[in-house]
Amino acid sequence: MDKKVAKEKFLGVFPDLVQELVGELKKHGMPEDAIQWFVRNLEYNTPGGKLNRGISVVDTYALLKGYSSYDDLSAEEYKKVAILGWCIELLQAYFLVADDMMDKSITRRGQPCWYKVDGVAEIAINDAFMLEAVIYILLKNHFKADAYYVDLLELFHEVTFQTELGQLLDLITAPEDHVDLSKFSLAKHSFIVIYKTAYYSFYLPVALAMYMSGVSGEKDLKQAQDVLIPLGEYFQIQDDFLDCFGKPEDIGKIGTDILDNKCSWVVNTALKLATPEQRELLDNNYGRKDATAEKKCKDLFNEMGIKELYLEYEEKIVGELKTKIANVDESRGFKGSVLTAFLNKIYKRQK
Amino acid sequence: MDKKVAKEKFLGVFPDLVQELVGELKKHGMPEDAIQWFVRNLEYNTPGGKLNRGISVVDTYALLKGYSSYDDLSAEEYKKVAILGWCIELLQAYFLVADDMMDKSITRRGQPCWYKVDGVAEIAINDAFMLEAVIYILLKNHFKADAYYVDLLELFHEVTFQTELGQLLDLITAPEDHVDLSKFSLAKHSFIVIYKTAYYSFYLPVALAMYMSGVSGEKDLKQAQDVLIPLGEYFQIQDDFLDCFGKPEDIGKIGTDILDNKCSWVVNTALKLATPEQRELLDNNYGRKDATAEKKCKDLFNEMGIKELYLEYEEKIVGELKTKIANVDESRGFKGSVLTAFLNKIYKRQK
Ligand SMILES: [Mg+2]
Ligand SMILES: [Mg+2]
Ligand SMILES: [Mg+2]
Ligand SMILES: [Mg+2]
Ligand SMILES: [Mg+2]
Ligand SMILES: [Mg+2]
Repeated sequence: MDKKVAKEKFLGVFPDLVQELVGELKKHGMPEDAIQWFVRNLEYNTPGGKLNRGISVVDTYALLKGYSSYDDLSAEEYKKVAILGWCIELLQAYFLVADDMMDKSITRRGQPCWYKVDGVAEIAINDAFMLEAVIYILLKNHFKADAYYVDLLELFHEVTFQTELGQLLDLITAPEDHVDLSKFSLAKHSFIVIYKTAYYSFYLPVALAMYMSGVSGEKDLKQAQDVLIPLGEYFQIQDDFLDCFGKPEDIGKIGTDILDNKCSWVVNTALKLATPEQRELLDNNYGRKDATAEKKCKDLFNEMGIKELYLEYEEKIVGELKTKIANVDESRGFKGSVLTAFLNKIYKRQK
Repeated sequence: MDKKVAKEKFLGVFPDLVQELVGELKKHGMPEDAIQWFVRNLEYNTPGGKLNRGISVVDTYALLKGYSSYDDLSAEEYKKVAILGWCIELLQAYFLVADDMMDKSITRRGQPCWYKVDGVAEIAINDAFMLEAVIYILLKNHFKADAYYVDLLELFHEVTFQTELGQLLDLITAPEDHVDLSKFSLAKHSFIVIYKTAYYSFYLPVALAMYMSGVSGEKDLKQAQDVLIPLGEYFQIQDDFLDCFGKPEDIGKIGTDILDNKCSWVVNTALKLATPEQRELLDNNYGRKDATAEKKCKDLFNEMGIKELYLEYEEKIVGELKTKIANVDESRGFKGSVLTAFLNKIYKRQK
């Protein structure tokens, strides 16, 4: 299905969910001003992104069921699987509202971060909590009768905790306002990106679709995870690479990882290879809010051939992932094409 | 059992839980510095309070099982029910870490609030998330094999959301830095205290003990709730009353509700009865960071007889609760004595 149409269809479910949740608040007798606040929290923070994670639940489900288009799903079936997709988007909203506060960010998705909106401030913390909590209301309302209901609950619990582990390590390794490159390493980078991003962005959508389609034995979940976790790591390494080496006109933004003291693949690779002089340059210039210092780091990365190392890494990881996908055991109904769909969205992307 | 001994015994379980959770982080390969951070988060924020909520799970369970002392519980059984108690304490820690940030509080339980500790700041948001997340790890590790496992998950989800609803209404009704008494009302006060406090502090401990003891039919949960929710509301109204009228030497602190623009039962009762002149006095003096303004409010509350209205309310609600408890249907194994134990802890308390 056309990407834009798929997104429209997915977005079409959201207002129903808002109404359903408003109904819950009304049942509790929540006063009108609080209901309005809650609706604004949901609408401001949930649907404004690319929705790739949510939509990929639907796409994966359709592939696993052998449907050739969305038209093969009944309206009820579409809504049900889309709700799982929206639960990921709610989980992401929960993380992002909080992440922006912790990173003191100013804008997100082309609008002020929620905590920066007039009158919100620290109330954003409780709003983040509520974005998480409604996931479990939706799951209860729509999946309680299903045999895999408790699997869904446990999966959300586990992936939430994993993401928080990654966030914690990121926060204490690379605080935005205190540079200490001795805390960085490629091993920590790997842990951070796998935990902070790969589980909820890559494994979670596929695992949810697998539960709903009934292809969810331990072996198959493991097959999915064995590809999707390194794939998610690759995605983030690519993101780090593009932040430094991508053209703003391609990636749609100006990278700030160097200025922000990000524990990125680029700096970790440079640190691993740096001579004492190069290391000193990085110690003195990385993570400073200063364009000249940023330029010195960029020049060093170029001089050290980080771009070439990235291209080498990319060819190697993509080769490994393709081999793993080719070897997927489809005998119980899992499909390698699910994983290829994710890989194709990432390989050689410019933005 | 002696209260102090009961607390010691309950506290004795906590280090095991910390070790169990550290084991989870090690399984994930979490680096040592992050494990240390996590342990400090758990230890700093979870066990420092009165632990009434957690201990009351154990006490309620023992009553329902007909045990005459803790000695009747096997070591394994004690630990299992104590874990449910610690899950409430973790839930409370999650709420309090965030509440202190939202209220810009300085100290909690005689030490700096967690976000005020050197080097923590906004990382406290993710730390709060983790305090919540480990509840579900503990429940999975210790209750997955029990028939009521999914009931426990749903109960925690629901009570968490209810508490967040109460917190939201409190935050938008009584922001610490913007006084607007037209937003206050006794109805809102009732909603706030029931949702923000009564569900997790009163209903949750009893409901958890009921599930574990097998006395958990819908009718019995409703009997518990029908007493514990108004009892929790009474507890908070008493708390509001003592903040204004209690002696500091009795309540162990100096009340600040007037200074802090709290949506308390005291001011809401005064607002309901105020003449236009009295209302003007409150509009001009309530919620100001100013001792003279505070004194004016206090004098007015005295003049309006709020203390006498409180004593009237207390006699009335305690009478109603006693009647309800006397009428509890014990035919399925629920016991009114569980509820009496809670009531006795609250009635006529000075602190
Ligand atoms: Mg950020
Ligand atoms: Mg961040
Ligand atoms: Mg990036
Ligand atoms: Mg507070
Ligand atoms: Mg508060
Ligand atoms: Mg109080």
